[in-house]
Amino acid sequence: MTSCSYARKKLTSLQYFQRAYAVKQITDKFQIPLLIDDRLDIAQAVGAAGVHLGQKDLPVAVAREILGPRAIIGATAKTLTQAQLAVEQGADYLGTGAIFPTQTHVETVRTSVKTLKQIKQSVGVPVYAIGGLNAGNVAAVKPAGVDGVAVVSAIMRVADPQRAARELRDQVLTIIG
Amino acid sequence: MTSCSYARKKLTSLQYFQRAYAVKQITDKFQIPLLIDDRLDIAQAVGAAGVHLGQKDLPVAVAREILGPRAIIGATAKTLTQAQLAVEQGADYLGTGAIFPTQTHVETVRTSVKTLKQIKQSVGVPVYAIGGLNAGNVAAVKPAGVDGVAVVSAIMRVADPQRAARELRDQVLTIIG
Repeated sequence: MTSCSYARKKLTSLQYFQRAYAVKQITDKFQIPLLIDDRLDIAQAVGAAGVHLGQKDLPVAVAREILGPRAIIGATAKTLTQAQLAVEQGADYLGTGAIFPTQTHVETVRTSVKTLKQIKQSVGVPVYAIGGLNAGNVAAVKPAGVDGVAVVSAIMRVADPQRAARELRDQVLTIIG
Repeated sequence: MTSCSYARKKLTSLQYFQRAYAVKQITDKFQIPLLIDDRLDIAQAVGAAGVHLGQKDLPVAVAREILGPRAIIGATAKTLTQAQLAVEQGADYLGTGAIFPTQTHVETVRTSVKTLKQIKQSVGVPVYAIGGLNAGNVAAVKPAGVDGVAVVSAIMRVADPQRAARELRDQVLTIIG
């Protein structure tokens, strides 16, 4: 799954729409569902598969009502309470993190993996780990039994995104299922 | 008509939704249609009458497709070209300005009122003047034959909004119709 984000770039709605539209042409070509970060209207505008909602975005229940039962709606859940609420409201999957807020805070890793595991064990939807993950450290989330991982920097901020994606994929396949 | 804006405040989507919801309770009470600035998803989330779109927001045609024929869709048009395009795409009304970018630029007033008039004469939808207008200067747009005016500061940044609104309304009624 590929998602398209605008929050950090402070794009205008028009720019976000244009970027999402361009990404949609690529994801369509490879038959990959596209999720839009935060903005339901942009998702509708480009015919995306759904949205990913953070805790500062529209509530999942409101999004479900607007987008209907077929849309994919994901939610960020940093705690067990947030996770359960999101699923009750109709989230199809959860993104949980950040696992590595910075790569030096080892304690944070342990705490988050424990929470990840609790969340995974308490909800009936797929749970994806997120936050500072890459091919070199993703093994840390193995004990949580997550369904996959979500990354930005690991692919977007490296010299060779294709190679990084391949390496990450290989690593992820060894820790899930 | 009342509109609800978030752009300048840099609200999160959740905050904008909550604020729009609160404003909707008030506009419903007085049976005033509520328009949401920019965000179609927030408009849908609170059941607003429609949206107002600037040149940096989603295109009017895209918004019309998402919101359907019954929604009110307004567009900001600063030039005749923008005005005609917005109406072709399905805008129900136009907001044109800024008439007074600052209250000292008298030349800007003349130019904008001329453009206002051209726009009003060339489109078949209501045209509202906007930008630095208040009870004291709104008479300047009379030659344009606009259908009304839109304000923020004239009401929101004064000590007595109710009185300012009343005075503005009285003035506006003398220059339209």
